[in-house]
This record gives sequence, structure tokens and C-alpha cells, in this order.
Amino acid sequence: MKILILGGDGYLGWPTAMYLSKKGHAVTVLDNFVKKKIENEQNIRPLFPQVPLRERVNLWNKNINNPIKFIMGDMLNHRLLYDTLGEIKPDSIIHYAEQPSAPYSMRGRESCYFTQYNNVMGTINLLFAMKKHCPEAHLIKLGTMGEYGTPNIDIEEGWLNIEHKGRKDRVMYPKKPGSFYHLSKVHDSNNIEFACRIWGFKCTDLNQGVVYGVDTNETKLDEKFSTSFHYDEVFGTVINRFICQSVIGRDLTVYGNGSQTRGYLNIIDTIKCIEIAANNPAKKSEFRVFNQYTEVLSINGIAKKVIKASSLNGIKINHTNIKNPRVEEEDHYYKPSNTSLISLGLNPIKINDDVLTEMIKKVLKHKDRILINTVMPNIKWQK
Amino acid sequence: MKILILGGDGYLGWPTAMYLSKKGHAVTVLDNFVKKKIENEQNIRPLFPQVPLRERVNLWNKNINNPIKFIMGDMLNHRLLYDTLGEIKPDSIIHYAEQPSAPYSMRGRESCYFTQYNNVMGTINLLFAMKKHCPEAHLIKLGTMGEYGTPNIDIEEGWLNIEHKGRKDRVMYPKKPGSFYHLSKVHDSNNIEFACRIWGFKCTDLNQGVVYGVDTNETKLDEKFSTSFHYDEVFGTVINRFICQSVIGRDLTVYGNGSQTRGYLNIIDTIKCIEIAANNPAKKSEFRVFNQYTEVLSINGIAKKVIKASSLNGIKINHTNIKNPRVEEEDHYYKPSNTSLISLGLNPIKINDDVLTEMIKKVLKHKDRILINTVMPNIKWQK
Repeated sequence: MKILILGGDGYLGWPTAMYLSKKGHAVTVLDNFVKKKIENEQNIRPLFPQVPLRERVNLWNKNINNPIKFIMGDMLNHRLLYDTLGEIKPDSIIHYAEQPSAPYSMRGRESCYFTQYNNVMGTINLLFAMKKHCPEAHLIKLGTMGEYGTPNIDIEEGWLNIEHKGRKDRVMYPKKPGSFYHLSKVHDSNNIEFACRIWGFKCTDLNQGVVYGVDTNETKLDEKFSTSFHYDEVFGTVINRFICQSVIGRDLTVYGNGSQTRGYLNIIDTIKCIEIAANNPAKKSEFRVFNQYTEVLSINGIAKKVIKASSLNGIKINHTNIKNPRVEEEDHYYKPSNTSLISLGLNPIKINDDVLTEMIKKVLKHKDRILINTVMPNIKWQK
Repeated sequence: MKILILGGDGYLGWPTAMYLSKKGHAVTVLDNFVKKKIENEQNIRPLFPQVPLRERVNLWNKNINNPIKFIMGDMLNHRLLYDTLGEIKPDSIIHYAEQPSAPYSMRGRESCYFTQYNNVMGTINLLFAMKKHCPEAHLIKLGTMGEYGTPNIDIEEGWLNIEHKGRKDRVMYPKKPGSFYHLSKVHDSNNIEFACRIWGFKCTDLNQGVVYGVDTNETKLDEKFSTSFHYDEVFGTVINRFICQSVIGRDLTVYGNGSQTRGYLNIIDTIKCIEIAANNPAKKSEFRVFNQYTEVLSINGIAKKVIKASSLNGIKINHTNIKNPRVEEEDHYYKPSNTSLISLGLNPIKINDDVLTEMIKKVLKHKDRILINTVMPNIKWQK
């Protein structure tokens, strides 16, 4: 399959590229390195030393028959997208190329503006480039479970069969996103659903839970293949952040009372989900939504698991509750559905002592690089 | 009341400014004249000769104690918005300043991109400028009934009480917009609802039906006060377009089978609705939605009324069905609610022979300016 990965330098994009390349697909990665720019701007850095994408790709290509192709480029440059799609004519387009941080989007006007501008307008350019050059391609778009918020009803997969005053319809599931970043993903979903409806596009929107993990089978092949693992307040997801706090013997900082409940998945499962979606494309005119997570946990539940695994590895830590920098419900109902990917064959990795121990051991090797002052939340939703 | 009207040069913005000024409010109008740019680009023009906004404002101010203030500026320039809001500290902000044409947004990538960029990012700038300088101001945002599409259930006013699998919630009404323009309005609604939720903003989102009409009491005072009345495929709404076709003796062009049903209102009622909203502001943290239309009609129903009124004025025309350039359902359920504005005192003008005759008479005076080649739809939703 000819696969174009937009955002191929990221935490998920790069391991996805290696995995699909190894499976024999013709992979092209495109990235504009805006995450690297934000890292510098925010004075943060990935935990594992990284070599530049170009060098990583060259190294990867040394041992493989179907080399990964690398394109440096920005989706806000529509010309580049038209040229790329016209040249490659991809079968699948995996779209990770968005500013992925909720806190960053809440810093102030400039970063909010950048987030929505980059994410929404880049995707608009993509839709028109697809219309011109590959309307038959399967668009696999990364969304987030955060689009739904925490409704008091069960969360279905993107659509909802509704009955109101004795009449029925199937509607887009009503969203209640919790940041300008999450809003940008909702805007994308709405724009893409329309493109499916009027232009017959095929799309799978993957509403992904919170991803954790340090390695995939491919990143383990060479330390130069490490992915962009973050633990800071900007790009660090909660489990990754807790593991880093543990390794340097700090208490885990729980936002608010810690009852907030979300869906989680391992980075290896993210990649499996992408592969499953690519192998089972949406139909013509179908805007298909999969909820992509493998287990539902509260922050307190996660803290408990990390504290236990730490203890098994000789690290004695506790957790401490800090004022929640976000505006979110802490005690809430949460019952999302995720049957689609499971029924297509996903066999989930669960968070257990072994999985956490592997993370702790890998992070321990780089513990001297942890910048603890980047972990505590300085960005507040209200001010 | 100190009122800032964003988009004060438009079909609705300018008559709103005069009306509220006459009522004694301190009105400031801001506009970037992007509609004038699009008029030139698309080779279209308003039917009634217009003098530039600055001249219109000066003329208006000659006979009034509380002069309208005019600011030339673009909401994409956030500095200007911050300065304007900091200086005026408005009580109400009436936000008309968006690219308002669905067909324009469907022309191609460039005009779609411009529509979403201008509308969504301009509103983001406004939200942050309000946060800084006037978080207590009442934001009156013009949305559209087109955000809802044509669902098979009753259309409520912005929110929906939902029951699903035995549990209940109140959610944003699920939208199914029919163009990239309508999508931009949905994105705005979602961004603004979030601002109400986290920053305590007060907002009234007016989901307006299709507006028609040539005059308000204020535009009649001097022909130089004429508003930007369009009948072309880009900015012309259906009733205004039909009246112009009638006046030059052409058959009314009905898109598709003409069963498409929508909410409509007179331009005079638009302004009344704005006044009602301003006089009855939303509460702190409230994202309030009013459906702003006064009657529900099918295209065939409108054609019939225009044909009858034309005949009363000695004009013999018929209607002709042409291929629908849009992607929309033609035979569909349509039952929207509009009780909020009525219960706050709106006393609607209905489409009848007198109202249509007044339109015909005014348009007749300018019939030589009608460019018939701009009426037929060249922009297609699919290609």
C-alpha cells in the first residue's frame, strides 16, 4: 500500500512509519518540525536523545528494501500538499500533523490562534488536495476522545442514534471539548464529515485516548530510532509524566481530586489501530469514527498503579493533589464504547506491573536528562 | 448602551447601526470592506448605488446628537481589536463580521480557506480581546439556521435535552451544516460556547434564517443610506433574487424540485431581534441560542408568492426548475423552534403581497442596474 504519514516526526508518527515500512508498505513521511520549534520556545525537550528525522530515515533505509521517503513541508503550504499527493497518489493518508497539546492551546491568544490555524486550515488544504489528486484515498485522521468531554450519557463511536419527540435520526455525536486544541479536532471532524458527504471521501476518524509508552518493537532496534517521548506539562501525557516523576523519586502530582476518568492506550496499540484502519478502509462517502483506547482509568487509579510498580522497582513515592489547572469535571460519569477496533482484531496491551516496569527501566537510563521544572503546570485554563 | 458593531458596512450591519444610533445608543462600527473586495473579484455589485461607509456615517451624524463612530479595521489584526475593545469597553458586541456566502465558500480551495480563516480566526481574536478588556460584555454573534441542516427531528434552540440508554444530559444540538461557510459558523459556536464555559462570557448566538428585504425605516431616510442589497449567486438570498428576476421579467429559477424548506425573516425583524437580544443579555457563563426566523417556507412556496405579487404589479412570470447546484436534501422534515425571540416581544412581519410589492417597487427603480448574468449559479458543490 502507498501510505503518506503527515506529521511523521512525532511521538506516534515516527514509530508508525517504521512499523508500516517493515510491513512492506511504501511509506512517505512529511513533517514541518513545528513541534521542535515549540520545544525550543517552551524550553522543553524529549527525554530520549533524538537524531534528526532525515538521519533517522537514512539509517532505517540502510536495512530495508522499501525505503521510507522523507518530505520536509508544511500543510499550510497547499502547493506542497497538491504536489505531494499528485506525485504519490497514496492509498492511505495518516494525518497526525497537528499541534497536539491542550495546555499549549490554552497559554494565550498566540498559541490558541496557532493551534486552530495550523490544525484546521492545514486539514482544509489536505481535503482540497485530495479532491484534486486522490479522492479515492482513505483518510485516517487522528482525533481525540477529548472531543467528547465527559457527557452524562454513554459515549458512542462518533455517531448517535437519537429519538426526540417521537422522531428518529442518526446524528454526529454532540461534543463538549475541554480546550482550544480539542476544539480544533472537533472542527476538523466536522469539516471532514462534510467532505465525505459531498465529495464521497472515505475517512476514518480515530478518537484516540491518552497514549503512553516508551518503545515499540521498531524503536528498540537502535537507540537512534527513539521516539519523541515527553513528560513535561506541554506535551507530556499523564502516565509518561508519572513515570518520570517516579524515576527521580518525586511524588506524582495529581490534578484536582484525581477522579477524572479517561481512556488510555499503549503506543504499540496506537500503531496497531492505524494498521487495522488502513487494512479495513472506510467505504465511499463514509465518515467512520473509531474510539481508540483500550482501558478506562481514573487519575487516582493510574497513580496507584505507578506507585505500586515503582515500589516493585525499589522506588518509594506517593502522590500529592495539586490545584487543577484545567477546567474539567472531576467527579463524572464516563462510559465510552470502543468495540469497533476490538472487533476488527485489536488485542489490547493492558497497564500492568510488567508494562510499567519496562517504562521505568528505560526512563531510568536517561534520568539525568529529566528537567523537573518543566513538569509542574504553569499554564492555567482560567486566569 | 455602548455598542460595537463588527461588520458595520454589510447588508445587516449598516441598517443595525443606524437603528441603534437612532435609539440613543453609542454605536461604533468596524469593517474591513472584504465584501467590497469579493464583489470586485466576482464581478458583482449591490443593486442600489452605495456611498462609502465613511461618507454614510458622516451624513448620518449631521442630524444626530450621538454620532456613530467608524473604525476601518480587520479582525484578523488582533492588535486593532485589543485597542478597540480597550478604548470603547462596549456593553454589547454585535458580531456580523464574517464572510457570509455559502456559494463563495464552495468555489474552491482559496475561497473556502479564506472563509474559515477569516471567520474562525477573527472570532478567536475577538474572544481573547474580550477576555483582556471586557469579559463582562454581551457578545451577540450572528450564526445561521443552516448550521442545523435538515435533521429528521425537531430543531431546538441550540441545545438539546437528550435521553440515551436510560441516562440524560443537555447537549449542544448536533449540527449538519451544508457548506464550508456554514461549517465556519458551527466552529465559531463551539469556540464561543467554550469561552462561556471557562471564562464566564455572556453570549447570544443568533441562528438566523434567510433574510430578505430592501429597506428599513432608516435606509428610507436618504437614498444614500441604502444597504448592500444583493441578488447575485454569491451574496443574493433567494427572495431578493426572485424579486430581481421578476422585475426584469425572467422566470424564477428554482434549485432542484423546490421542496427545500427553510426559515425566513425580514431585514427589519433582524434588527429588532438584535435589539431584543441586546436589551435582554445572556447571563454570566451562558451560551444562549435563539433561532431567529419568523416563518417557514419552501422554495416552491416562495416562488408562488413572488409570482402572485408580480402579477398584482402587472408582471407575468413563471418559475423554472434548474439542476440544484448544492448538495442538500430536497424532500425533508423541517420543524425548527423559534419561541425565544417571540416570547421576548418580537412581532413578526410576514411575507405577503404588500411586503413583496414594496420590494418590487423599490427594485423597479433600479432595474437597469441588474446584471442578469450574475444570477444563475455557476458555483457547484460537487465537480
